[in-house]
Amino acid sequence: MDIKEKSLNKHYEWNGKIEVKSAVPINTKEDLALAYTPGVAQPCLEIQKDINKSYELTRRNNLVAVVTDGTAVLGLGDIGPEAGMPVMEGKCALFKEFADVDAFPICIKSKDVDEIVNTIYMISGSFGGINLEDISAPRCFEIERKLKEICDIPVFHDDQHGTAIVVGAALINALKLASKSISDIKLVINGAGSAGIAIGKHLINLGVKNLIMVDRIGIIEDNDSFNDAQRDMANITNPENIHGDLYDAIKGADVFVGVSAKDVLKKEMIESMNDKPIIFAMANPSPEIMPDLAKEYGAYIVGTGRSDFPNQINNVLAFPGIFRGALDCRAYEINEEMKVAATYAIANLVSDKELNVEMILPNPLDKRIGAEVAKAVIKAAKETNTARI
Amino acid sequence: MDIKEKSLNKHYEWNGKIEVKSAVPINTKEDLALAYTPGVAQPCLEIQKDINKSYELTRRNNLVAVVTDGTAVLGLGDIGPEAGMPVMEGKCALFKEFADVDAFPICIKSKDVDEIVNTIYMISGSFGGINLEDISAPRCFEIERKLKEICDIPVFHDDQHGTAIVVGAALINALKLASKSISDIKLVINGAGSAGIAIGKHLINLGVKNLIMVDRIGIIEDNDSFNDAQRDMANITNPENIHGDLYDAIKGADVFVGVSAKDVLKKEMIESMNDKPIIFAMANPSPEIMPDLAKEYGAYIVGTGRSDFPNQINNVLAFPGIFRGALDCRAYEINEEMKVAATYAIANLVSDKELNVEMILPNPLDKRIGAEVAKAVIKAAKETNTARI
Repeated sequence: MDIKEKSLNKHYEWNGKIEVKSAVPINTKEDLALAYTPGVAQPCLEIQKDINKSYELTRRNNLVAVVTDGTAVLGLGDIGPEAGMPVMEGKCALFKEFADVDAFPICIKSKDVDEIVNTIYMISGSFGGINLEDISAPRCFEIERKLKEICDIPVFHDDQHGTAIVVGAALINALKLASKSISDIKLVINGAGSAGIAIGKHLINLGVKNLIMVDRIGIIEDNDSFNDAQRDMANITNPENIHGDLYDAIKGADVFVGVSAKDVLKKEMIESMNDKPIIFAMANPSPEIMPDLAKEYGAYIVGTGRSDFPNQINNVLAFPGIFRGALDCRAYEINEEMKVAATYAIANLVSDKELNVEMILPNPLDKRIGAEVAKAVIKAAKETNTARI
Repeated sequence: MDIKEKSLNKHYEWNGKIEVKSAVPINTKEDLALAYTPGVAQPCLEIQKDINKSYELTRRNNLVAVVTDGTAVLGLGDIGPEAGMPVMEGKCALFKEFADVDAFPICIKSKDVDEIVNTIYMISGSFGGINLEDISAPRCFEIERKLKEICDIPVFHDDQHGTAIVVGAALINALKLASKSISDIKLVINGAGSAGIAIGKHLINLGVKNLIMVDRIGIIEDNDSFNDAQRDMANITNPENIHGDLYDAIKGADVFVGVSAKDVLKKEMIESMNDKPIIFAMANPSPEIMPDLAKEYGAYIVGTGRSDFPNQINNVLAFPGIFRGALDCRAYEINEEMKVAATYAIANLVSDKELNVEMILPNPLDKRIGAEVAKAVIKAAKETNTARI
């Protein structure tokens, strides 16, 4: 039985991957009077006086909404809000298992940016954070931007930022092994969708100077062929002003980051790269090049999105700990400094002794990760006055 | 320490009364692959093909949203969405404890009817039912009506219908003791807000013919002094066409139902009632008349909303089992027949042997209730073609 069939059977057996439990005993009249009426009036009044008390007197302190509109689910595309729920529930299960975050899945029956923004804003008082998930580009940029403006809790599109953080951590460790400095490398990102653009921005924040972004029709430029987000990126990338396609972009590059499509990375491309090529081929389920082939063509380090090859670039390394940290310091938002801190925390979880070309990232199942990432995130939040406590 | 102070301390200790848990193990790479990527793609695709599969493959089969806008919280009034959350969480805890329903609290940051309706509709695909809570009248009528029109899952305003169902059960058993027939009695409801109107409609469905509703300014009539919902009720009540106030209405009545205010039921009113007066004085926290006083003035049976007197008319007798039933048969809605069935199920949980003037309702802590109510609700749903399965 293949994994998909087995998963389907398991899903029929599970009937849902999350459960909402009561955290208080209700066995006696006094239990009822304390947890519900009439006693409950008092915590209500305390929150009315000071809304910050909602973090102490309700579960808001540990609650994250995992929200989708079902438009970009896995590699499946626009399958609708209800059909996206198995992924959302899975994500919620990971939040709980890896960082003890109570995450609740919500799918929204609309594809309209303002309707989605409004719905999430309306329910935001129930949560301590919002994890956006599997929302298609370029709508996801606008949705996140608008929500960040109006919400006073963290809003984080994991497909963008979670991916960017883990790529950043992988890059830091890969460059250690290759003995290259992040400010000296040339790096090509293939795929200028939501993940590609977020990765680009984050790697610039980490110190990459020479970055080129390529999309289906070629190297992105500030013209009508590209969307606003891509045009913005064109203006802060490609310092050598190279024109053309991936063949042109990748010549002499130290690093290739693919969030694009199956088999687009060719032998001649790798051969045209600088010494010790680093390849992160993250297209799912089939990478831009299969790891064995990439190695054969000269790649020094290869990472993919898959668990059946070494160096899995897996968001689960980032999002549980990031929200754990954001919740614990009641952050207003998740800012760039917190993302950079999370990146280094993940990279540093691989000791110098462990670090090798087949282990540039910690094992995603290592349950130390959430707490370590959280610690770094809290420190950065406090240093940037983004923490409420 | 009084109950409110003790409750506040407990709430600080609890830090929230619900918890979202993972219902699946995530310890190995295979666990990850089954519960999340890549395996999860398969249940997603199944739901895309047939949206009804969302009831089998996600937690929707057991999930109810408990939604408020914070405008009519307990007796506290409009205290805001976040401040209403301790009540919503308490309700969710009761749902779980009394009927194993996963209930999740959501507060909405708006008082606008259409914004509230739209927000709830947008997230309705994530749930198997919607329990509206503590929303002020007359907005609650319109919100519920509009949601019932557009949602294909049950929408139930518990402050209206839950209360009505439990009052109905209490009435059935009180009339048994008084040896009166429901079609012969005269019944006065004091307080024509959301609960009063819902009680009125439900008691008519149960067979009450002679019902008079009274509000602050007197017996409700079809004129400009009353809101639309009250005017509608005026047209189906008060068959003797009595004018005046509560003194005029209550003369010769068999039953008084109060959802109004402290101390409004006077000695002379009870004395003017028919033989064996039945008094349900449910104003909270202080009833329309204290039970001892009502008895002294001749009341035969007295019920209140309070747990420190006999005959507590408590919604917890109804809502857990009603949603348990609605979820188990995947009902499209909770219709009148299901409410009537729930009413009789609750009444019948008091055996003839147990039934007496101080025990007209089952003990709210009796954990048989949810299952018994659910059974009756499912039967009625099937008989009225309201069940999906």
